[in-house]
Amino acid sequence: MSVITIERKVLEKNDEIAHQNRALLARHGILALNMVSSPGAGKTSILERMLERIKEHVPIAVIEGDVQTDLDARRVARYGVPAVQIVTRGGCHLEANLVRDALAGLALAGIKILIIENVGNLVCPSNYDLGEAFKVVVASTTEGDDKPMKYPAMFRNASVLIINKIDLLPYVASDIDALQSNALAINPALTVFRTSCTTGEGISAWCDWLLAKAGVRG
Amino acid sequence: MSVITIERKVLEKNDEIAHQNRALLARHGILALNMVSSPGAGKTSILERMLERIKEHVPIAVIEGDVQTDLDARRVARYGVPAVQIVTRGGCHLEANLVRDALAGLALAGIKILIIENVGNLVCPSNYDLGEAFKVVVASTTEGDDKPMKYPAMFRNASVLIINKIDLLPYVASDIDALQSNALAINPALTVFRTSCTTGEGISAWCDWLLAKAGVRG
Repeated sequence: MSVITIERKVLEKNDEIAHQNRALLARHGILALNMVSSPGAGKTSILERMLERIKEHVPIAVIEGDVQTDLDARRVARYGVPAVQIVTRGGCHLEANLVRDALAGLALAGIKILIIENVGNLVCPSNYDLGEAFKVVVASTTEGDDKPMKYPAMFRNASVLIINKIDLLPYVASDIDALQSNALAINPALTVFRTSCTTGEGISAWCDWLLAKAGVRG
Repeated sequence: MSVITIERKVLEKNDEIAHQNRALLARHGILALNMVSSPGAGKTSILERMLERIKEHVPIAVIEGDVQTDLDARRVARYGVPAVQIVTRGGCHLEANLVRDALAGLALAGIKILIIENVGNLVCPSNYDLGEAFKVVVASTTEGDDKPMKYPAMFRNASVLIINKIDLLPYVASDIDALQSNALAINPALTVFRTSCTTGEGISAWCDWLLAKAGVRG
């Protein structure tokens, strides 16, 4: 029982800080995304294709979350956008206080879109509000079409589903339509995009939708 | 501080039950594996190929861990081996007490190999001893070659690395040799196999190694 009490307190404290983050972002007119997925589903690759496509149209900043290393922040920094790396040192998800500290290291004035790339984990990040406008869950075609049923919380709490690696469809047994309908059965409100970071397919549609959400013309 | 204290207590309690599980398995002469990976790396598919290959040679039982659904236990049960599903209902990893309860539901006499398939999560299961002889981490070629650096604990705590989905190598940017050397840099003691569940490549080598470990002729 004590563990459950502590966990509830941790979540309540997290939600309070997330609320403050959300207010700070709103004051600056920043649309913030929380990108979540299994390790290796392609969050950073999608982010790289997004930066190529929209960084000339809109000022973007990035917060990278990883258990270890700053590899992802270095990948992103090559695109000339402000990027802060959070290293959780074993922690399996980002929490609102880590994002608050990262926000303190960013010049927020003028930024329109903030992309927070969470730790690769399809379970734990689903419970932690970071202050984002919405969560984007990335599922790759190689992971199999049963993942929404097996990891429902993440799909339930996201607003956008990006089905990535569609270039690999000819070589895998996954049924992409089954993946999408399994996800929509859990969360009918999901907006779904299908992308390939190798061919670039679908990246424009996702970016155009995002720019419209942020009130920016692409 | 209180959270850390509680976590330490949880881990100590877990280790105590894991110790009891290990003693129970030893009494029955059972070699137990704890299979861990990202969601969708192919743990269940490898298990299916293993059952096809070795279930005639050696009595096997399976414990399936999932956040939700009994899809995997149903997949495994088709092979005619005893299988118990643990549904964690949101929990991000198996714990020793869940495995203890699952063991109580299996007829252990005569079983030689027990395969425990953990929840798909490359972070949290690394800390929880279940009483297994060793951990097997599965990394698929589609996840990218940087995963050992980004999720080091899992690779450090495993004895075997299975690099799966090698049939997809012509279609992905991953460098399989870099993946292997990144893993060995973290844990030089890893025994590495390279497999494809689509073509069957590498499955025999892995099964032969496992049968030898279990003291069974393949």
